[in-house]
Amino acid sequence: MTKADATADNVLRDLAAIRAKNPVVLNITNYVVTNTTANALLALGASPIMSHAVEEMAELVGISGALVINLGTVAPEYLAAMDPAWAAADAAGVPVVLDPVGAGASTLRTATPLALLAGHKAFIVRGNASEIMTLAGKSGAAAKGVDSTAKSGDAADLARALANRFSCAVAVSGEVDLVCAGQATALVHGGSALMPRVTGLGCTATALCGAFAAVNPDPFEAALHACVAMKVAGEMAADKAAGPGTLQLHFYDALYSMGEQDIRQRLKVER
Amino acid sequence: MTKADATADNVLRDLAAIRAKNPVVLNITNYVVTNTTANALLALGASPIMSHAVEEMAELVGISGALVINLGTVAPEYLAAMDPAWAAADAAGVPVVLDPVGAGASTLRTATPLALLAGHKAFIVRGNASEIMTLAGKSGAAAKGVDSTAKSGDAADLARALANRFSCAVAVSGEVDLVCAGQATALVHGGSALMPRVTGLGCTATALCGAFAAVNPDPFEAALHACVAMKVAGEMAADKAAGPGTLQLHFYDALYSMGEQDIRQRLKVER
Amino acid sequence: MTKADATADNVLRDLAAIRAKNPVVLNITNYVVTNTTANALLALGASPIMSHAVEEMAELVGISGALVINLGTVAPEYLAAMDPAWAAADAAGVPVVLDPVGAGASTLRTATPLALLAGHKAFIVRGNASEIMTLAGKSGAAAKGVDSTAKSGDAADLARALANRFSCAVAVSGEVDLVCAGQATALVHGGSALMPRVTGLGCTATALCGAFAAVNPDPFEAALHACVAMKVAGEMAADKAAGPGTLQLHFYDALYSMGEQDIRQRLKVER
Repeated sequence: MTKADATADNVLRDLAAIRAKNPVVLNITNYVVTNTTANALLALGASPIMSHAVEEMAELVGISGALVINLGTVAPEYLAAMDPAWAAADAAGVPVVLDPVGAGASTLRTATPLALLAGHKAFIVRGNASEIMTLAGKSGAAAKGVDSTAKSGDAADLARALANRFSCAVAVSGEVDLVCAGQATALVHGGSALMPRVTGLGCTATALCGAFAAVNPDPFEAALHACVAMKVAGEMAADKAAGPGTLQLHFYDALYSMGEQDIRQRLKVER
Repeated sequence: MTKADATADNVLRDLAAIRAKNPVVLNITNYVVTNTTANALLALGASPIMSHAVEEMAELVGISGALVINLGTVAPEYLAAMDPAWAAADAAGVPVVLDPVGAGASTLRTATPLALLAGHKAFIVRGNASEIMTLAGKSGAAAKGVDSTAKSGDAADLARALANRFSCAVAVSGEVDLVCAGQATALVHGGSALMPRVTGLGCTATALCGAFAAVNPDPFEAALHACVAMKVAGEMAADKAAGPGTLQLHFYDALYSMGEQDIRQRLKVER
Repeated sequence: MTKADATADNVLRDLAAIRAKNPVVLNITNYVVTNTTANALLALGASPIMSHAVEEMAELVGISGALVINLGTVAPEYLAAMDPAWAAADAAGVPVVLDPVGAGASTLRTATPLALLAGHKAFIVRGNASEIMTLAGKSGAAAKGVDSTAKSGDAADLARALANRFSCAVAVSGEVDLVCAGQATALVHGGSALMPRVTGLGCTATALCGAFAAVNPDPFEAALHACVAMKVAGEMAADKAAGPGTLQLHFYDALYSMGEQDIRQRLKVER
């Protein structure tokens, strides 16, 4: 069996587990993608909760298989819930996925994820190349607002440094996704050039990291499998889409329907 | 004329009234479904307003045919508007539809709808089985986060108790919807197994209850007709959908286009 | 060359500039349309940021080609960011597009845009007929909540007065769009009767005004070209749509794919 076969087996095992167990994934996320990431999680088979109510965070973390913290909306009423929620997750051993949306675009967007990472245990950090490079300490990393002008490959060394510094997996989304943790690195090919034209597909990758984290205790594998699911579903959707609007809908359909043949035929992981 | 014919006649009469009058439906709702429930109301023929600005609640209630209060986002800035808005609706005789999203999933989500119901006059309460069972006093009702693991039929007795306690109609959504008020009970069949895989279709049912409440003074009928509209549109959409993504879009199209033949042929109400 | 040809040339020039430069458009907008207007901007070729975090407004304005202020959500946590953001835009010479959603529907929705306009330099104000008539001082302008019951033509004189009072362009959306500034007026025909059945397409027109404002220093032209893009994309989408749900998706596809033939064949501007 080649490595690609083994990876496909593992993705399929985790996908089956998500569909069988419907793990609760708690999301403190931005108001651009609450609907779309909830739909992606439901389509995949998870059970999403979207909340930023401080009062219920500890209770909700207690019933969740993973916590996703997405910094797309950095308004105070959203930020207030993140630290208590993450503290509850640390205490309960619930894996946490962090998305530093727009790190580098403003001081607040750079400082907030670093402060959270300094105080808590991360399972996976997922971002685009600019965001990951910024968190790793490279000031002025190539960003255009919340979009990246760098490629994931440009961020490889800094992603590995970040992963080692916070003892987590780091996933860098781009035309090619890069996943690393400890000594392991993988590149995930596939997807579609239309994907960056749909808002929040990066945030969707983060949410799917949460679903895989809920069924797989290895952060590298969970991040890798989420990236594979994104690339495979994106490619399946692109086969039917005429633009970014129709792509998004077929993407949910693909997350819902993708099966063994889809994964085995479309998986393109390079190690 | 059979009962089914009479129900179809009544649904068609209300649907025509919504499309003719375009009643304003004011929604204090959660940030996951603001867009999707507004789209469902527009597709059906109503004129939605989405707001949680305390300062304008009394004015907006004054121009509204119904008020929908959805507890999906229980953050303080959302909750603050609910009590004043409902008080204005009580004073003006505007019917109020309450959706206790996630009741049972956290203390806050259980206590908030009960406190609102204790102080105000409800027209319809709509939820899934777990939420309705929780409100009726059954602690630990089968819930998985904001999703239910119970069926609507399991909630029948508790739904009737809740309806009698608050003198309103109660609608329990599920594979089969259950609607009750006073001595009346109805079951609504149809829809599609894909519907729970689209986020916020429960909230959409609540919003449609608001549209029907704006044109029908009987809470049982308004709730029943909204459930019929959901099941018929869901079934029409499923005929064209390949998954939850395409289902959602065809669902709006169906709400917009559904006519006499669709209702008469697909309506499946059991009393 | 006729005027229509010249207009088509200018639209195509601006569209090419947006697609080549991907200007950052910063949006302080309502929670109904954050996702959909971001998707429209991405489909057109711009790079949207959605935020209402006061702390980062000056920084984000500094990297933006235009600022869009949309008053759909008039809750305090949204309003707080608008004045500082607009002040930063004034100082930096960044064009600002204002959408007075629901002006006339509540005191707050009428007073807020007028207070903002009194203190800042507007580039474009875009609204429906009721909203524009309200801002121009006509109390009780025909509104139904956030929807208009008046036609854009009814608002022509008041729109011109508003444009002159605030030295900006005014765009009035409707079955026929009306754009005016100084002595210039244009009517834009096309689109589809389904468009008002999709929530937030007015807000989408405002967002597109931001994209065109980022590449065209003339407010009248920027507003006109955004209206043309809306009407052309709406018409292209309607050719493939069976209702408001599918219309919205094909609309994004059309913004993404529309090219020279689409613009030249479908542009219907009357001066």
